Amino acid sequence: MRITLVGAGRVATHLVKALKSQHEIVQVFSRNLKHAQQLAGQVHAQAIDSADQLTSQTDLVIVAVSDLGIADVVGSIAAYLPQNLIVHTSGSTSLIALQQRHQRAGVFYPLQTFSFEREVDWLETPLFVEAAHQQDLTLLTNLANSLSNRVYQYSSQQRQTLHLAAVFACNFSNYCYDMAKQVVDAEQVDFSLLFPLILETAKKATNTDPKQMQTGPAMRGDQNILTMHQALLSQSNRPDLEEVYRLMSEGIFKRHLNKFE
Amino acid sequence: MRITLVGAGRVATHLVKALKSQHEIVQVFSRNLKHAQQLAGQVHAQAIDSADQLTSQTDLVIVAVSDLGIADVVGSIAAYLPQNLIVHTSGSTSLIALQQRHQRAGVFYPLQTFSFEREVDWLETPLFVEAAHQQDLTLLTNLANSLSNRVYQYSSQQRQTLHLAAVFACNFSNYCYDMAKQVVDAEQVDFSLLFPLILETAKKATNTDPKQMQTGPAMRGDQNILTMHQALLSQSNRPDLEEVYRLMSEGIFKRHLNKFE
Repeated sequence: MRITLVGAGRVATHLVKALKSQHEIVQVFSRNLKHAQQLAGQVHAQAIDSADQLTSQTDLVIVAVSDLGIADVVGSIAAYLPQNLIVHTSGSTSLIALQQRHQRAGVFYPLQTFSFEREVDWLETPLFVEAAHQQDLTLLTNLANSLSNRVYQYSSQQRQTLHLAAVFACNFSNYCYDMAKQVVDAEQVDFSLLFPLILETAKKATNTDPKQMQTGPAMRGDQNILTMHQALLSQSNRPDLEEVYRLMSEGIFKRHLNKFE
Repeated sequence: MRITLVGAGRVATHLVKALKSQHEIVQVFSRNLKHAQQLAGQVHAQAIDSADQLTSQTDLVIVAVSDLGIADVVGSIAAYLPQNLIVHTSGSTSLIALQQRHQRAGVFYPLQTFSFEREVDWLETPLFVEAAHQQDLTLLTNLANSLSNRVYQYSSQQRQTLHLAAVFACNFSNYCYDMAKQVVDAEQVDFSLLFPLILETAKKATNTDPKQMQTGPAMRGDQNILTMHQALLSQSNRPDLEEVYRLMSEGIFKRHLNKFE
Protein backbone atom coordinates (compact mmCIF):
# COMPACT_ATOMS: atom_id res chain seq x y z
CA MET A 1 0.00 0.00 0.00
CA ARG A 2 0.97 3.62 -0.59
CA ILE A 3 0.48 5.57 2.65
CA THR A 4 0.63 9.27 3.56
CA LEU A 5 1.31 10.33 7.13
CA VAL A 6 -0.07 13.60 8.48
CA GLY A 7 1.72 14.45 11.72
CA ALA A 8 5.27 13.75 12.89
CA GLY A 9 4.78 13.10 16.61
CA ARG A 10 5.11 9.90 18.63
CA VAL A 11 2.24 7.96 17.03
CA ALA A 12 3.22 9.00 13.48
CA THR A 13 6.86 8.10 14.14
CA HIS A 14 6.04 4.64 15.48
CA LEU A 15 3.55 4.00 12.67
CA VAL A 16 6.10 4.91 10.00
CA LYS A 17 8.66 2.57 11.58
CA ALA A 18 6.12 -0.25 11.73
CA LEU A 19 4.72 0.23 8.20
CA LYS A 20 7.91 0.85 6.22
CA SER A 21 8.95 -2.79 5.74
CA GLN A 22 5.71 -3.85 4.04
CA HIS A 23 4.34 -0.58 2.68
CA GLU A 24 5.48 2.55 0.89
CA ILE A 25 5.34 5.84 2.80
CA VAL A 26 4.88 8.44 0.06
CA GLN A 27 4.63 11.70 2.00
CA VAL A 28 5.00 12.98 5.56
CA PHE A 29 3.09 16.20 6.20
CA SER A 30 3.77 18.42 9.21
CA ARG A 31 3.32 22.15 9.75
CA ASN A 32 6.88 21.94 11.07
CA LEU A 33 8.93 21.08 7.96
CA LYS A 34 11.96 20.00 10.03
CA HIS A 35 9.86 17.41 11.87
CA ALA A 36 8.43 16.21 8.56
CA GLN A 37 11.93 15.95 7.07
CA GLN A 38 13.32 14.04 10.05
CA LEU A 39 10.60 11.40 9.77
CA ALA A 40 10.34 11.31 5.95
CA GLY A 41 14.12 10.97 5.66
CA GLN A 42 14.00 7.61 7.47
CA VAL A 43 11.84 6.08 4.71
CA HIS A 44 12.77 8.11 1.60
CA ALA A 45 9.35 9.79 1.61
CA GLN A 46 8.64 13.37 0.56
CA ALA A 47 8.46 15.86 3.42
CA ILE A 48 5.85 18.59 2.98
CA ASP A 49 4.49 21.40 5.14
CA SER A 50 1.62 22.67 3.00
CA ALA A 51 -1.66 20.90 2.15
CA ASP A 52 -1.55 21.88 -1.53
CA GLN A 53 1.54 19.66 -1.91
CA LEU A 54 -0.41 16.54 -0.91
CA THR A 55 -0.57 13.90 -3.63
CA SER A 56 -3.80 12.04 -4.32
CA GLN A 57 -1.69 9.10 -5.58
CA THR A 58 -1.95 7.34 -2.21
CA ASP A 59 -4.14 4.52 -0.85
CA LEU A 60 -4.47 5.84 2.67
CA VAL A 61 -3.93 9.09 4.55
CA ILE A 62 -3.29 8.59 8.27
CA VAL A 63 -3.89 11.69 10.39
CA ALA A 64 -1.83 10.98 13.52
CA VAL A 65 -2.28 14.19 15.49
CA SER A 66 -3.77 14.92 18.92
CA ASP A 67 -7.56 14.83 19.31
CA LEU A 68 -7.64 18.62 19.55
CA GLY A 69 -6.01 18.94 16.11
CA ILE A 70 -7.98 16.36 14.11
CA ALA A 71 -10.88 18.58 12.98
CA ASP A 72 -8.64 21.44 11.85
CA VAL A 73 -6.17 19.19 10.07
CA VAL A 74 -8.83 17.21 8.22
CA GLY A 75 -10.59 20.48 7.34
CA SER A 76 -7.39 21.80 5.80
CA ILE A 77 -6.45 18.68 3.77
CA ALA A 78 -9.81 17.21 2.68
CA ALA A 79 -10.23 19.58 -0.29
CA TYR A 80 -6.96 18.28 -1.80
CA LEU A 81 -7.86 14.61 -1.32
CA PRO A 82 -11.58 14.40 -2.15
CA GLN A 83 -11.48 10.74 -3.30
CA ASN A 84 -8.94 9.41 -0.76
CA LEU A 85 -9.49 7.41 2.40
CA ILE A 86 -8.54 9.53 5.43
CA VAL A 87 -8.33 7.97 8.91
CA HIS A 88 -7.48 9.25 12.37
CA THR A 89 -5.70 7.28 15.11
CA SER A 90 -7.67 8.40 18.15
CA GLY A 91 -9.54 6.39 20.78
CA SER A 92 -11.98 9.09 21.78
CA THR A 93 -12.75 10.94 18.54
CA SER A 94 -15.75 9.38 16.77
CA LEU A 95 -15.86 8.32 13.15
CA ILE A 96 -18.67 10.83 12.59
CA ALA A 97 -16.48 13.75 13.70
CA LEU A 98 -14.22 12.97 10.73
CA GLN A 99 -17.06 12.00 8.37
CA GLN A 100 -18.61 15.46 8.79
CA ARG A 101 -15.56 16.85 7.02
CA HIS A 102 -14.71 14.03 4.60
CA GLN A 103 -16.85 11.33 3.08
CA ARG A 104 -14.30 8.45 2.88
CA ALA A 105 -13.55 8.45 6.61
CA GLY A 106 -12.06 5.81 8.87
CA VAL A 107 -10.30 5.06 12.14
CA PHE A 108 -7.06 3.17 12.81
CA TYR A 109 -6.57 3.14 16.61
CA PRO A 110 -3.58 1.41 18.24
CA LEU A 111 -4.23 0.79 21.96
CA GLN A 112 -0.74 1.43 23.30
CA THR A 113 1.34 4.14 24.96
CA PHE A 114 4.01 5.55 22.65
CA SER A 115 7.31 7.15 23.61
CA PHE A 116 10.18 8.20 21.42
CA GLU A 117 12.53 6.32 23.76
CA ARG A 118 11.00 2.85 23.44
CA GLU A 119 10.22 0.34 20.68
CA VAL A 120 6.62 -0.89 20.35
CA ASP A 121 5.71 -4.58 20.07
CA TRP A 122 3.22 -4.16 17.23
CA LEU A 123 2.36 -7.87 16.96
CA GLU A 124 0.87 -7.69 20.49
CA THR A 125 -0.64 -4.21 20.20
CA PRO A 126 -4.44 -4.34 19.76
CA LEU A 127 -5.57 -2.38 16.69
CA PHE A 128 -9.14 -1.15 16.26
CA VAL A 129 -10.49 -0.22 12.82
CA GLU A 130 -13.70 1.46 11.73
CA ALA A 131 -14.79 2.97 8.39
CA ALA A 132 -17.75 4.67 6.76
CA HIS A 133 -17.62 2.23 3.80
CA GLN A 134 -17.31 -1.55 3.78
CA GLN A 135 -14.46 -1.62 1.21
CA ASP A 136 -12.47 0.80 3.35
CA LEU A 137 -13.09 -1.32 6.43
CA THR A 138 -11.65 -4.30 4.55
CA LEU A 139 -8.62 -2.25 3.46
CA LEU A 140 -7.96 -1.06 7.04
CA THR A 141 -8.43 -4.58 8.44
CA ASN A 142 -5.88 -5.93 5.97
CA LEU A 143 -3.44 -3.19 6.83
CA ALA A 144 -3.92 -3.82 10.57
CA ASN A 145 -3.40 -7.56 10.05
CA SER A 146 -0.06 -6.80 8.39
CA LEU A 147 1.11 -5.27 11.69
CA SER A 148 -0.66 -7.01 14.56
CA ASN A 149 -2.15 -10.34 15.63
CA ARG A 150 -4.88 -8.52 17.54
CA VAL A 151 -7.16 -6.68 15.10
CA TYR A 152 -10.75 -5.71 15.95
CA GLN A 153 -13.57 -3.97 14.08
CA TYR A 154 -14.93 -1.77 16.88
CA SER A 155 -17.58 0.96 16.91
CA SER A 156 -16.75 4.50 18.03
CA GLN A 157 -18.61 3.84 21.28
CA GLN A 158 -16.63 0.68 22.09
CA ARG A 159 -13.40 2.48 21.26
CA GLN A 160 -14.41 5.33 23.54
CA THR A 161 -14.95 2.89 26.43
CA LEU A 162 -11.54 1.35 25.81
CA HIS A 163 -9.86 4.74 25.75
CA LEU A 164 -11.54 5.80 29.00
CA ALA A 165 -10.38 2.54 30.62
CA ALA A 166 -6.89 3.12 29.20
CA VAL A 167 -6.72 6.50 30.93
CA PHE A 168 -7.23 4.69 34.26
CA ALA A 169 -4.96 1.73 33.44
CA CYS A 170 -2.12 3.70 31.84
CA ASN A 171 -2.20 7.47 32.43
CA PHE A 172 -3.37 7.24 36.05
CA SER A 173 -1.16 4.30 37.01
CA ASN A 174 1.81 6.18 35.53
CA TYR A 175 0.85 9.19 37.63
CA CYS A 176 0.84 6.87 40.68
CA TYR A 177 4.44 5.93 39.81
CA ASP A 178 5.26 9.61 39.40
CA MET A 179 3.78 10.43 42.83
CA ALA A 180 5.68 7.49 44.40
CA LYS A 181 8.89 8.87 42.92
CA GLN A 182 8.17 12.31 44.37
CA VAL A 183 7.67 10.73 47.81
CA VAL A 184 11.01 8.88 47.79
CA ASP A 185 12.91 11.71 46.05
CA ALA A 186 11.96 14.10 48.86
CA GLU A 187 13.68 11.77 51.37
CA GLN A 188 16.67 10.85 49.17
CA VAL A 189 15.45 7.26 48.93
CA ASP A 190 16.20 5.44 45.65
CA PHE A 191 13.14 5.08 43.37
CA SER A 192 14.57 1.94 41.75
CA LEU A 193 13.89 0.04 45.00
CA LEU A 194 10.23 0.10 43.92
CA PHE A 195 10.80 -1.43 40.47
CA PRO A 196 10.19 -5.10 41.42
CA LEU A 197 6.96 -4.03 43.13
CA ILE A 198 5.78 -1.98 40.13
CA LEU A 199 6.46 -4.80 37.66
CA GLU A 200 4.94 -7.52 39.86
CA THR A 201 1.78 -5.45 40.45
CA ALA A 202 1.31 -4.99 36.68
CA LYS A 203 1.98 -8.67 35.93
CA LYS A 204 -0.52 -9.73 38.58
CA ALA A 205 -3.25 -7.60 37.01
CA THR A 206 -2.78 -9.41 33.70
CA ASN A 207 -3.08 -12.84 35.36
CA THR A 208 -5.87 -12.40 37.89
CA ASP A 209 -8.72 -9.93 38.44
CA PRO A 210 -7.02 -6.85 39.99
CA LYS A 211 -9.84 -6.61 42.53
CA GLN A 212 -8.70 -9.97 43.95
CA MET A 213 -5.06 -8.83 43.86
CA GLN A 214 -5.60 -5.64 45.90
CA THR A 215 -3.34 -5.32 48.95
CA GLY A 216 -2.37 -2.50 51.32
CA PRO A 217 -3.61 -0.58 54.36
CA ALA A 218 -6.79 0.79 52.73
CA MET A 219 -8.02 -2.68 51.74
CA ARG A 220 -7.29 -3.98 55.25
CA GLY A 221 -9.06 -0.95 56.74
CA ASP A 222 -5.94 -0.15 58.79
CA GLN A 223 -6.86 3.32 60.05
CA ASN A 224 -3.57 3.72 61.98
CA ILE A 225 -1.43 3.44 58.85
CA LEU A 226 -3.82 5.54 56.77
CA THR A 227 -3.71 8.33 59.36
CA MET A 228 0.08 8.09 59.66
CA HIS A 229 0.61 8.25 55.87
CA GLN A 230 -1.68 11.26 55.53
CA ALA A 231 0.15 12.99 58.39
CA LEU A 232 3.47 12.35 56.61
CA LEU A 233 2.14 13.93 53.41
CA SER A 234 0.71 16.84 55.36
CA GLN A 235 4.05 17.43 57.16
CA SER A 236 5.79 17.36 53.77
CA ASN A 237 3.42 20.12 52.66
CA ARG A 238 1.97 18.01 49.84
CA PRO A 239 -1.80 18.60 50.08
CA ASP A 240 -2.12 17.38 46.46
CA LEU A 241 -0.69 13.95 47.29
CA GLU A 242 -2.69 13.89 50.54
CA GLU A 243 -5.94 14.41 48.66
CA VAL A 244 -5.12 11.64 46.17
CA TYR A 245 -4.15 9.37 49.08
CA ARG A 246 -7.45 10.07 50.85
CA LEU A 247 -9.68 9.59 47.80
CA MET A 248 -7.96 6.44 46.50
CA SER A 249 -7.89 4.86 49.97
CA GLU A 250 -11.56 5.62 50.46
CA GLY A 251 -12.35 4.04 47.08
CA ILE A 252 -10.32 0.91 47.86
CA PHE A 253 -11.83 0.58 51.33
CA LYS A 254 -15.41 0.82 50.03
CA ARG A 255 -14.66 -1.58 47.18
CA HIS A 256 -13.52 -4.23 49.70
CA LEU A 257 -15.97 -3.49 52.52
CA ASN A 258 -17.71 -6.83 52.09
CA LYS A 259 -14.49 -8.58 53.17
CA PHE A 260 -15.00 -7.22 56.68
CA GLU A 261 -18.70 -8.08 57.03
CA MET B 1 19.45 -20.81 61.35
CA ARG B 2 16.50 -22.06 63.40
CA ILE B 3 13.50 -19.83 62.70
CA THR B 4 10.01 -19.53 64.24
CA LEU B 5 7.18 -18.02 62.21
CA VAL B 6 4.32 -16.22 63.93
CA GLY B 7 1.44 -15.81 61.48
CA ALA B 8 0.28 -18.00 58.59
CA GLY B 9 -0.88 -15.41 56.05
CA ARG B 10 0.60 -14.40 52.71
CA VAL B 11 3.88 -12.95 53.97
CA ALA B 12 4.49 -15.83 56.41
CA THR B 13 3.72 -18.39 53.69
CA HIS B 14 6.11 -16.84 51.17
CA LEU B 15 8.83 -16.43 53.82
CA VAL B 16 8.57 -20.10 54.85
CA LYS B 17 8.86 -21.19 51.20
CA ALA B 18 11.89 -18.95 50.69
CA LEU B 19 13.68 -19.88 53.93
CA LYS B 20 13.13 -23.64 54.00
CA SER B 21 15.97 -24.67 51.67
CA GLN B 22 18.71 -22.99 53.72
CA HIS B 23 17.22 -22.76 57.19
CA GLU B 24 15.18 -24.82 59.65
CA ILE B 25 11.63 -23.68 60.40
CA VAL B 26 11.04 -25.00 63.92
CA GLN B 27 7.53 -23.77 64.73
CA VAL B 28 4.61 -22.02 63.00
CA PHE B 29 2.31 -20.19 65.41
CA SER B 30 -1.19 -19.04 64.44
CA ARG B 31 -4.32 -18.47 66.50
CA ASN B 32 -5.98 -20.58 63.80
CA LEU B 33 -4.41 -24.03 64.31
CA LYS B 34 -5.53 -25.27 60.87
CA HIS B 35 -3.66 -22.43 59.17
CA ALA B 36 -0.60 -23.15 61.30
CA GLN B 37 -0.78 -26.85 60.41
CA GLN B 38 -1.15 -26.18 56.68
CA LEU B 39 1.98 -24.06 56.62
CA ALA B 40 4.03 -26.08 59.17
CA GLY B 41 3.22 -29.30 57.31
CA GLN B 42 5.08 -28.05 54.23
CA VAL B 43 8.36 -27.86 56.15
CA HIS B 44 7.96 -30.50 58.90
CA ALA B 45 7.71 -27.77 61.55
CA GLN B 46 5.57 -27.90 64.68
CA ALA B 47 2.20 -26.17 64.39
CA ILE B 48 1.06 -24.37 67.55
CA ASP B 49 -1.81 -22.07 68.46
CA SER B 50 -0.84 -21.03 71.98
CA ALA B 51 2.04 -18.82 73.09
CA ASP B 52 3.03 -21.09 76.00
CA GLN B 53 4.00 -23.77 73.45
CA LEU B 54 6.68 -21.52 71.89
CA THR B 55 10.21 -22.90 72.16
CA SER B 56 13.09 -20.63 73.08
CA GLN B 57 15.41 -22.98 71.15
CA THR B 58 15.27 -20.76 68.07
CA ASP B 59 17.57 -18.09 66.59
CA LEU B 60 14.87 -15.79 65.26
CA VAL B 61 11.14 -15.24 65.70
CA ILE B 62 9.51 -13.58 62.69
CA VAL B 63 6.15 -11.95 63.44
CA ALA B 64 4.52 -11.77 60.00
CA VAL B 65 1.10 -10.36 60.85
CA SER B 66 -0.70 -7.19 59.77
CA ASP B 67 0.40 -3.87 61.31
CA LEU B 68 -2.75 -3.77 63.43
CA GLY B 69 -1.84 -7.11 65.04
CA ILE B 70 1.88 -6.60 65.77
CA ALA B 71 1.57 -4.96 69.22
CA ASP B 72 -0.91 -7.54 70.55
CA VAL B 73 0.99 -10.50 69.17
CA VAL B 74 4.36 -9.36 70.49
CA GLY B 75 2.73 -8.54 73.83
CA SER B 76 1.40 -12.08 74.05
CA ILE B 77 4.61 -13.94 73.07
CA ALA B 78 7.42 -11.80 74.53
CA ALA B 79 7.10 -13.24 78.04
CA TYR B 80 7.83 -16.76 76.69
CA LEU B 81 10.85 -15.64 74.64
CA PRO B 82 12.65 -13.11 76.88
CA GLN B 83 16.14 -13.75 75.39
CA ASN B 84 15.14 -14.28 71.74
CA LEU B 85 15.38 -11.93 68.79
CA ILE B 86 11.86 -11.00 67.63
CA VAL B 87 11.32 -9.10 64.34
CA HIS B 88 8.30 -7.82 62.47
CA THR B 89 7.98 -7.61 58.67
CA SER B 90 6.20 -4.28 58.32
CA GLY B 91 7.13 -1.17 56.36
CA SER B 92 5.25 1.31 58.47
CA THR B 93 5.61 0.00 62.04
CA SER B 94 8.71 1.44 63.71
CA LEU B 95 11.39 -0.54 65.49
CA ILE B 96 10.54 1.34 68.69
CA ALA B 97 6.93 0.12 68.62
CA LEU B 98 8.30 -3.41 68.98
CA GLN B 99 11.15 -2.45 71.30
CA GLN B 100 8.66 -1.04 73.82
CA ARG B 101 7.43 -4.62 74.34
CA HIS B 102 10.62 -6.62 73.81
CA GLN B 103 14.25 -5.70 74.25
CA ARG B 104 15.83 -7.79 71.43
CA ALA B 105 13.75 -6.24 68.67
CA GLY B 106 14.30 -6.04 64.92
CA VAL B 107 12.72 -5.55 61.51
CA PHE B 108 12.87 -7.72 58.39
CA TYR B 109 10.87 -5.92 55.68
CA PRO B 110 10.49 -7.34 52.16
CA LEU B 111 9.35 -4.63 49.71
CA GLN B 112 7.05 -6.69 47.52
CA THR B 113 3.36 -7.48 47.02
CA PHE B 114 2.51 -11.04 48.05
CA SER B 115 -0.34 -13.21 46.77
CA PHE B 116 -1.03 -16.87 47.43
CA GLU B 117 -1.43 -17.35 43.66
CA ARG B 118 2.03 -16.19 42.57
CA GLU B 119 5.66 -17.09 43.26
CA VAL B 120 7.99 -14.33 44.49
CA ASP B 121 11.41 -13.64 42.94
CA TRP B 122 13.28 -13.30 46.23
CA LEU B 123 16.68 -12.64 44.63
CA GLU B 124 15.29 -9.38 43.18
CA THR B 125 13.11 -8.42 46.15
CA PRO B 126 14.66 -5.57 48.20
CA LEU B 127 14.97 -6.53 51.88
CA PHE B 128 15.33 -3.90 54.64
CA VAL B 129 16.72 -4.84 58.05
CA GLU B 130 16.94 -2.93 61.31
CA ALA B 131 17.71 -4.01 64.88
CA ALA B 132 18.11 -2.61 68.38
CA HIS B 133 21.50 -4.37 68.80
CA GLN B 134 24.45 -4.53 66.41
CA GLN B 135 24.87 -8.34 66.66
CA ASP B 136 21.20 -8.78 65.73
CA LEU B 137 21.59 -6.42 62.78
CA THR B 138 24.46 -8.61 61.55
CA LEU B 139 22.37 -11.74 62.01
CA LEU B 140 19.43 -10.23 60.07
CA THR B 141 21.72 -8.94 57.32
CA ASN B 142 23.23 -12.41 56.88
CA LEU B 143 19.77 -13.97 56.75
CA ALA B 144 18.60 -11.39 54.19
CA ASN B 145 21.71 -12.00 52.07
CA SER B 146 20.83 -15.70 51.98
CA LEU B 147 17.58 -14.77 50.17
CA SER B 148 18.16 -11.61 48.14
CA ASN B 149 20.80 -9.68 46.21
CA ARG B 150 19.30 -6.40 47.38
CA VAL B 151 19.73 -6.03 51.15
CA TYR B 152 19.70 -2.65 52.93
CA GLN B 153 20.12 -1.49 56.54
CA TYR B 154 17.39 1.16 56.70
CA SER B 155 16.03 3.24 59.55
CA SER B 156 12.35 3.13 60.52
CA GLN B 157 11.89 6.56 58.94
CA GLN B 158 13.40 5.52 55.60
CA ARG B 159 11.30 2.36 55.62
CA GLN B 160 8.19 4.42 56.31
CA THR B 161 8.95 6.62 53.28
CA LEU B 162 9.38 3.53 51.13
CA HIS B 163 6.12 2.03 52.33
CA LEU B 164 4.22 5.27 51.67
CA ALA B 165 5.68 5.37 48.15
CA ALA B 166 4.79 1.69 47.71
CA VAL B 167 1.14 2.47 48.48
CA PHE B 168 1.14 4.88 45.52
CA ALA B 169 3.20 2.65 43.20
CA CYS B 170 1.48 -0.64 44.01
CA ASN B 171 -1.84 -0.33 45.88
CA PHE B 172 -3.06 2.73 43.97
CA SER B 173 -1.86 1.60 40.54
CA ASN B 174 -3.61 -1.74 41.17
CA TYR B 175 -6.79 0.18 42.03
CA CYS B 176 -6.38 2.03 38.70
CA TYR B 177 -6.36 -1.36 36.94
CA ASP B 178 -9.40 -2.37 38.96
CA MET B 179 -11.28 0.82 37.95
CA ALA B 180 -10.26 0.28 34.29
CA LYS B 181 -11.71 -3.25 34.48
CA GLN B 182 -14.97 -1.90 35.91
CA VAL B 183 -15.20 0.57 33.00
CA VAL B 184 -14.78 -2.10 30.29
CA ASP B 185 -16.84 -4.74 32.13
CA ALA B 186 -19.84 -2.38 32.19
CA GLU B 187 -19.74 -2.24 28.36
CA GLN B 188 -18.87 -5.91 27.77
CA VAL B 189 -15.46 -4.96 26.44
CA ASP B 190 -12.62 -7.43 27.12
CA PHE B 191 -10.23 -6.29 29.88
CA SER B 192 -7.37 -8.30 28.38
CA LEU B 193 -7.18 -5.79 25.50
CA LEU B 194 -5.52 -3.46 28.04
CA PHE B 195 -2.78 -5.91 29.08
CA PRO B 196 -0.07 -4.74 26.62
CA LEU B 197 -0.73 -1.17 27.74
CA ILE B 198 -0.54 -2.02 31.45
CA LEU B 199 2.72 -3.94 31.07
CA GLU B 200 4.34 -1.35 28.81
CA THR B 201 3.41 1.50 31.18
CA ALA B 202 5.02 -0.34 34.11
CA LYS B 203 8.16 -1.23 32.11
CA LYS B 204 8.52 2.40 30.98
CA ALA B 205 8.45 3.63 34.59
CA THR B 206 11.39 1.36 35.43
CA ASN B 207 13.45 2.68 32.48
CA THR B 208 12.76 6.40 32.49
CA ASP B 209 11.41 8.97 34.98
CA PRO B 210 7.62 8.41 34.96
CA LYS B 211 7.08 12.16 34.82
CA GLN B 212 8.76 12.18 31.38
CA MET B 213 6.69 9.15 30.32
CA GLN B 214 3.29 10.68 31.14
CA THR B 215 0.80 10.62 28.25
CA GLY B 216 -2.95 11.15 27.92
CA PRO B 217 -5.58 13.89 27.66
CA ALA B 218 -4.86 15.47 31.08
CA MET B 219 -1.18 15.98 30.30
CA ARG B 220 -2.07 17.49 26.90
CA GLY B 221 -4.68 19.70 28.60
CA ASP B 222 -7.33 18.37 26.21
CA GLN B 223 -10.47 19.74 27.89
CA ASN B 224 -12.80 18.21 25.25
CA ILE B 225 -11.75 14.65 26.05
CA LEU B 226 -11.66 15.28 29.81
CA THR B 227 -15.22 16.63 29.71
CA MET B 228 -16.41 13.75 27.53
CA HIS B 229 -14.85 11.10 29.80
CA GLN B 230 -16.38 12.67 32.90
CA ALA B 231 -19.76 12.81 31.17
CA LEU B 232 -19.46 9.08 30.32
CA LEU B 233 -18.75 8.24 33.97
CA SER B 234 -21.60 10.47 35.10
CA GLN B 235 -24.03 8.80 32.66
CA SER B 236 -22.89 5.39 33.95
CA ASN B 237 -23.80 6.58 37.43
CA ARG B 238 -20.25 6.17 38.73
CA PRO B 239 -19.62 9.33 40.78
CA ASP B 240 -16.76 7.50 42.56
CA LEU B 241 -14.84 6.95 39.31
CA GLU B 242 -15.76 10.45 38.15
CA GLU B 243 -14.19 11.97 41.28
CA VAL B 244 -11.00 9.94 40.86
CA TYR B 245 -10.89 10.93 37.18
CA ARG B 246 -11.26 14.61 38.06
CA LEU B 247 -8.66 14.64 40.84
CA MET B 248 -6.03 12.58 39.00
CA SER B 249 -6.48 14.61 35.79
CA GLU B 250 -6.14 17.86 37.72
CA GLY B 251 -2.95 16.55 39.36
CA ILE B 252 -1.46 15.45 36.03
CA PHE B 253 -2.39 18.72 34.33
CA LYS B 254 -0.80 20.85 37.07
CA ARG B 255 2.30 18.64 37.13
CA HIS B 256 2.85 19.27 33.40
CA LEU B 257 1.67 22.89 33.23
CA ASN B 258 5.16 24.15 32.40
CA LYS B 259 4.98 22.22 29.10
CA PHE B 260 2.33 24.66 27.91
CA GLU B 261 4.05 27.84 29.00
